[in-house]
Amino acid sequence: MASSSSLVQPSVRLPSKTPSVRRFALVGRTNQSPLRLNPIRISVSASHRTRLDVQASSAPPMMEEATSGSRSSTVVDVDLGNRSYPIYIGSGLLDEHDLLQRHVSGKQVLVVTNTTVAPLYLDKVIKALTDGKPNVTVESVILPDGEKYKDMDTLMKVFDKAIKTRLDRKCTFVALGGGVIGDMCGFAAAAFLRGVNFIQIPTTLMAQVDSSVGGKTGVNHPLGKNLIGAFYQPQCVLIDTDTLNTLPDRELASGIAEVVKYGLIRDAEFFEWQEKNMQALLSRDPSALAYAIKRSCENKAEVVSLDEKESGLRATLNLGHTFGHAIETGFGYGQWLHGEAVAAGTVMAVDMSYRLGWIDDTIVKRVLNILQKAKLPTTPPDMMTVEKFESLMAVDKKVADGLLRLILLKGPLGNCVFTGDYDRKALKETLHAFCKF
Amino acid sequence: MASSSSLVQPSVRLPSKTPSVRRFALVGRTNQSPLRLNPIRISVSASHRTRLDVQASSAPPMMEEATSGSRSSTVVDVDLGNRSYPIYIGSGLLDEHDLLQRHVSGKQVLVVTNTTVAPLYLDKVIKALTDGKPNVTVESVILPDGEKYKDMDTLMKVFDKAIKTRLDRKCTFVALGGGVIGDMCGFAAAAFLRGVNFIQIPTTLMAQVDSSVGGKTGVNHPLGKNLIGAFYQPQCVLIDTDTLNTLPDRELASGIAEVVKYGLIRDAEFFEWQEKNMQALLSRDPSALAYAIKRSCENKAEVVSLDEKESGLRATLNLGHTFGHAIETGFGYGQWLHGEAVAAGTVMAVDMSYRLGWIDDTIVKRVLNILQKAKLPTTPPDMMTVEKFESLMAVDKKVADGLLRLILLKGPLGNCVFTGDYDRKALKETLHAFCKF
Repeated sequence: MASSSSLVQPSVRLPSKTPSVRRFALVGRTNQSPLRLNPIRISVSASHRTRLDVQASSAPPMMEEATSGSRSSTVVDVDLGNRSYPIYIGSGLLDEHDLLQRHVSGKQVLVVTNTTVAPLYLDKVIKALTDGKPNVTVESVILPDGEKYKDMDTLMKVFDKAIKTRLDRKCTFVALGGGVIGDMCGFAAAAFLRGVNFIQIPTTLMAQVDSSVGGKTGVNHPLGKNLIGAFYQPQCVLIDTDTLNTLPDRELASGIAEVVKYGLIRDAEFFEWQEKNMQALLSRDPSALAYAIKRSCENKAEVVSLDEKESGLRATLNLGHTFGHAIETGFGYGQWLHGEAVAAGTVMAVDMSYRLGWIDDTIVKRVLNILQKAKLPTTPPDMMTVEKFESLMAVDKKVADGLLRLILLKGPLGNCVFTGDYDRKALKETLHAFCKF
Repeated sequence: MASSSSLVQPSVRLPSKTPSVRRFALVGRTNQSPLRLNPIRISVSASHRTRLDVQASSAPPMMEEATSGSRSSTVVDVDLGNRSYPIYIGSGLLDEHDLLQRHVSGKQVLVVTNTTVAPLYLDKVIKALTDGKPNVTVESVILPDGEKYKDMDTLMKVFDKAIKTRLDRKCTFVALGGGVIGDMCGFAAAAFLRGVNFIQIPTTLMAQVDSSVGGKTGVNHPLGKNLIGAFYQPQCVLIDTDTLNTLPDRELASGIAEVVKYGLIRDAEFFEWQEKNMQALLSRDPSALAYAIKRSCENKAEVVSLDEKESGLRATLNLGHTFGHAIETGFGYGQWLHGEAVAAGTVMAVDMSYRLGWIDDTIVKRVLNILQKAKLPTTPPDMMTVEKFESLMAVDKKVADGLLRLILLKGPLGNCVFTGDYDRKALKETLHAFCKF
């Protein structure tokens, strides 16, 4: 057990140099042509980076020790001043009880999970929280599973439980599940008694590479996704990669859509690695998955550290999401998984970027190819009409003063812009090209 | 109109020197006897203080100019770094359109108000927001009036309206009403699209002296008050003292309960001023009211600046509130006004302080006397049993690790402690003394 780290012995090709420069331009609506800012080069302190991303492919990567125990894990730090926190990534981390316990304050814990995850991991998490801690009491609330329950009524069940069991301000909420659980538990923690501690234990690839990191929490409204929520940071994110062993294939692919996104918006080298290793990811090669999670978290942590409240840069993490959210809302929450909608949305955003003349056609083909390899949808569902897209995209959070801003690719692979300054014709053409009506 | 400031020509006695030293002690549960910290002397920069509180009683106080317009107003600054904001206090401020407009960002405004206030002031506020601003659109949502509607279902109506009218992240929410409206609108602003700007226009004395200042927002849960919410600061607070002209007597008295509180916990001189001027306050003498509002806001602003998230000092603002919230919840929201419950709760807290031997009996008598003068209740309603108090106080937000901490008076007038270290017998005795069963 002690040496069962899934992160050593990579059977996959790892890149041989440091991440390339990522470029991003924030473009105002008044510019005639988008203003390209200077490239942002991210400097991350060495002490908290693994050396995985600078290893040659053949040697097992050296891992930083994150615990005093017998297992090893990678740590990615999200640097947000006094709201900074670590993301632990590794195999068997739920058996490292100290790792979780050191981030629990107070004596009361509320685990928020769902009907799918509870039978698999709730006992394990309760054990991790209480092992050697007789004074710690753990309550749990088990919500129905699925995006369609990510609403205020379901959220109230968390408050009901917290209040009925008399949790106080020093308690800790623990999110155990995928993105829906993480977002809801985080928002509940933000609002309960005006804010209590919380910890993320994401159990889906989607949550591990994206939704559990960065502090965006919230619930859906019948008219749009995540319209009610808070920016609220956890005490830590604990990613036990073993939890992916129980994840359905479709959920795995959904998470890969976000992994692909990081490559497209800011990490060309990572995208190239994915092109070579997609089969390893789909067949759940532990080291490939661990590498993809780590590199995704690094990308996300860098972006969030630079722009916590999404004044510009952070919006680029939403490549494909404006189209994707419209699909999710229009088609009905829970019909498609989030990553499936994002995949189709990404193809649409890439198509539009090409129509604007901002990227060449090889990128269009490579995006289509990698998403198809991952068995993700690359067109919206038939019921999505042009009118439906237009109406739903009008309530997107990125609309400002009536203008819809979009994340679009521009320039070589790994570069994007967040802009409201684009030819409306291209958007129309993309919608008509992808919709039957 | 131009000279209609209600702040000049005081007919009431104003204190002749600067506020006295306020003392506060935060007491840990492990101390045998409460540790008294060094007195905190608040230093407030002169540039933003009026000279009202250092005027002799006979001369009209000089007011600081807050606007470039013809009217004058007092400004109290809440110093919270990049979340600092001004509180404007004066007569006719809703006619100073520039004052409001300078704090509106974006072109979309949502006014949240209720069925009582809307017929009185909504048109005036819409005019103030749009005068000379053809691009600004104002939507409004009119909620039912009363504490019993301060719940999640009613809050959803605000989100519904905001989403249906396609407000974006640059919009501004305006709370027009009393404490319930301010708390709900503030929480809606905190959560809508994960946070939009908001402005407080309090129209009750309670909201003007307390709830609109300091950023506490939220809604009630059937099991307790304000259990769901956020700390979220407004862009400004605009207090037009003319709105008190339409306030029912009972509501006026309710606000006075909080004014009395400031004197008891940290401002003996202000308490003494109130003892001399209670009749002027009850008969709505404009300068007495303006002075009481200003001095209350100064006290609150100082406390909030020192302890925004209520780690200790800020809790002292809740003198009488733990008993009071139990009354409000137990008796049913809307039966008693908040200040009425706080008044009875204050008498109970003072009684308990006396039983502990922490204050002498003259303070007990003076508190009883001033609250009776204000026609506020000084005992809980008959239906409140000892058991009901105990059960409801157990879910108070100030419970930590199972221990109920209370704000109690200790020492000379104007001094209090926030502590869990008190003889339980005294609490029992107080409950039995005030409850019939």
